Amino acid sequence: MNPHLSGIGEDVMGFLNEVQMNYPDAISMASGRPDEAHFDLENFPEYMGLYLDAMVETSKKDRSHLARQLGQYNRAKGIINTMISQYLHKDEQILADPEDIVVTVGSQEGMAIAVLTLCDREKDIIVTEDPSYVGMTHLSMLLGYDIRPVPMTDSGLDIDRFEALVESVAASGKRVRLVYVIPDFQNPTGRRMELRSRQRLLELADEYEFFILEDNAYRSFVYEDEQIPTLKVLDRHDRVIHLHSFSKVVCPSLRLGVLVAGQRMDGGVRLSDLMSRVKGYITVNTSGIDQAILGGILLKNDFSLKSYNKDKLISIKGKRDRVLLALQRHFRSGRFCWEKKILWNMPAGGFFITITVPFPVDKAEAAFCAGNHALIFTPMSFFYLRQEINNQIRLAFSNLPDAAIEPAIANLALYIEAKTHCSKCNTICHESKSQC
Amino acid sequence: MNPHLSGIGEDVMGFLNEVQMNYPDAISMASGRPDEAHFDLENFPEYMGLYLDAMVETSKKDRSHLARQLGQYNRAKGIINTMISQYLHKDEQILADPEDIVVTVGSQEGMAIAVLTLCDREKDIIVTEDPSYVGMTHLSMLLGYDIRPVPMTDSGLDIDRFEALVESVAASGKRVRLVYVIPDFQNPTGRRMELRSRQRLLELADEYEFFILEDNAYRSFVYEDEQIPTLKVLDRHDRVIHLHSFSKVVCPSLRLGVLVAGQRMDGGVRLSDLMSRVKGYITVNTSGIDQAILGGILLKNDFSLKSYNKDKLISIKGKRDRVLLALQRHFRSGRFCWEKKILWNMPAGGFFITITVPFPVDKAEAAFCAGNHALIFTPMSFFYLRQEINNQIRLAFSNLPDAAIEPAIANLALYIEAKTHCSKCNTICHESKSQC
Repeated sequence: MNPHLSGIGEDVMGFLNEVQMNYPDAISMASGRPDEAHFDLENFPEYMGLYLDAMVETSKKDRSHLARQLGQYNRAKGIINTMISQYLHKDEQILADPEDIVVTVGSQEGMAIAVLTLCDREKDIIVTEDPSYVGMTHLSMLLGYDIRPVPMTDSGLDIDRFEALVESVAASGKRVRLVYVIPDFQNPTGRRMELRSRQRLLELADEYEFFILEDNAYRSFVYEDEQIPTLKVLDRHDRVIHLHSFSKVVCPSLRLGVLVAGQRMDGGVRLSDLMSRVKGYITVNTSGIDQAILGGILLKNDFSLKSYNKDKLISIKGKRDRVLLALQRHFRSGRFCWEKKILWNMPAGGFFITITVPFPVDKAEAAFCAGNHALIFTPMSFFYLRQEINNQIRLAFSNLPDAAIEPAIANLALYIEAKTHCSKCNTICHESKSQC
Repeated sequence: MNPHLSGIGEDVMGFLNEVQMNYPDAISMASGRPDEAHFDLENFPEYMGLYLDAMVETSKKDRSHLARQLGQYNRAKGIINTMISQYLHKDEQILADPEDIVVTVGSQEGMAIAVLTLCDREKDIIVTEDPSYVGMTHLSMLLGYDIRPVPMTDSGLDIDRFEALVESVAASGKRVRLVYVIPDFQNPTGRRMELRSRQRLLELADEYEFFILEDNAYRSFVYEDEQIPTLKVLDRHDRVIHLHSFSKVVCPSLRLGVLVAGQRMDGGVRLSDLMSRVKGYITVNTSGIDQAILGGILLKNDFSLKSYNKDKLISIKGKRDRVLLALQRHFRSGRFCWEKKILWNMPAGGFFITITVPFPVDKAEAAFCAGNHALIFTPMSFFYLRQEINNQIRLAFSNLPDAAIEPAIANLALYIEAKTHCSKCNTICHESKSQC
């Protein structure tokens, strides 16, 4: 067996699915799925037709010939790269030559491709924010790479501690090669990397010659304030590989993502060309059907998904606001003396909110809450590489019906009340009710 | 960089694409693509509808709810496993519990999953027929595994030499863990593994406790004789992992394949469950859109693709026959004294034929033939792990229009004539025309 398979800790998805199966009536705030009320699968045949129409227009070839070609094996790099380049320019201010883009089977495959192309198992270290998306941390471990955690502050990656790690790695004769970050509305914390950290990270990348893999999955879902420029836009020394997902801005079942990697490597070869070659050995190429559908959506929307997602954005912002209001109502009513020990952040975007509670939260707690208080959450400990006791909870609000939000937070309050159980004393009683 | 990236030899696809771009008028027999004349993309919306209708019928849920769910993230293992189980039973006589099946992004991802789940980089050896599909050999190298070649006889893997390798590996303190074979109409040779070899391979798998990864990509395309049972059907000790591709029986752009892996591993866990977990870190799950389309095709055809592919099979058999006739006409006319040095096999199925010529064939030869004789072939050397001089050519006839076959073989004859150039002497002149 792959010895790393047993080493990657919790089977997070497996566990959460099991909890949901065991307690089918529990409200789930466990999974950061996009709100499926906004999917428009009924239009997919139309989008595929629009894509073919456009191909007829540009190639002057017969439509049935083009349809047959669309059924065939295609370029590992992708077939809608020009359209995606226009989209990235319009919605993300990213200038990317179509040939710098690799279309991937979701951003997950993009991570696998980036690691397998850039990193040498013997010499290279991968670094990640901690906590972070397990799809990147577990993947790296599964592939046999050494991935190291750097703690976060409230404003993203702790740059001082990161710099210390880079130096200690260099002193050990290895090198930091790839740094994985989700600068905007991070999964799982919902936090955003501040501008100064972005700038310092880029300076360090230039100095120490590592690459930054910028995962941009949640940026389109911004609810407050000005956007902070992406690392890709700030990048002056070609250190950023930009990873974009279409799972949240369109839908997950298309399984579409992109890598933007125009860097020139030894011998002048484009990084995107090396990555396409690696991709060829993972999935050969990305589904032409799914690419044609996205192509049609981009054509229909003049290469911007802003108006396509306008209602979705308003709706998810509304869900966040309801969660914040419900938290306020349940945890700032003055009813319980332990209220001030319950903290949460105010995510300016994305799908997640972090709740800090006055007791450790693990897998058993998640099952207990689902079973006894009909709410499924994800323990923040699932997302850490560092094995430390943790007293945080990740709540995902992106796919929760509006009407379920108040009951969900009410259930959370009942769970926390049962865990701490004190409306009389001034201390928090973790152990048992009898101590009150 | 991944140090194995430069070690995986020829970028076969890149090279062949480049040749095709440089010589756009050359007839290509390089790539084993299925005949796109039989693709029916115009029916895909109907198939997706049929799938949703069936879901409504079985779940009694609202159609629009099911459509939204289809847009969402889904099970890593797949959503059409029951339908595929019925198909495998009908068309391949394979009994597989739906939960033993993992739906993959083409069979290529199945290979990546199998290697990453089963093999320990430090202890395990992967074995392959040599020559073989580069998707498996290069993938294994790219992932940092030790993959060893075993020569083939005319009737498949050379079992005696394979057994000797297994023993020498064991003596070295490692173990053969996974053996990759394409028993039916192998890529690139077109050869078939004889029944006795299949039986011996299974006996050895039981004795030495390795797994066999049986790639079944071409079996549906049989033109002569009785079928020989698959390794999976012959397997009595649960040593076979069966890999099936829908690229040839439906179309490549759906990117669908399956792994059948019902083995129980340590602790009683299903191998398919471990594989699904690994798949989660490669592509999360397989496109729900593509799965729904295949589901609809299977529903419409009562879970058999035999009649769906009837015309395609007749057509490809016809192409093979035309190739054989053209070879006979050009290389057995008695016109050239070197004719008897040109040999070919008679593949009983599949997409490929092997031509043996009296001179070494490499990359430069392929470019020379494309440029001077308007035919693109693949040097057989591309498919070997053993670096030996090779004088064979792989011709793929699966996607060549009927009318192009005679000109293609005529071009091949002109190329070989130019290379050997002797209608007078009784020797073969490889070096230059002036020696005649």
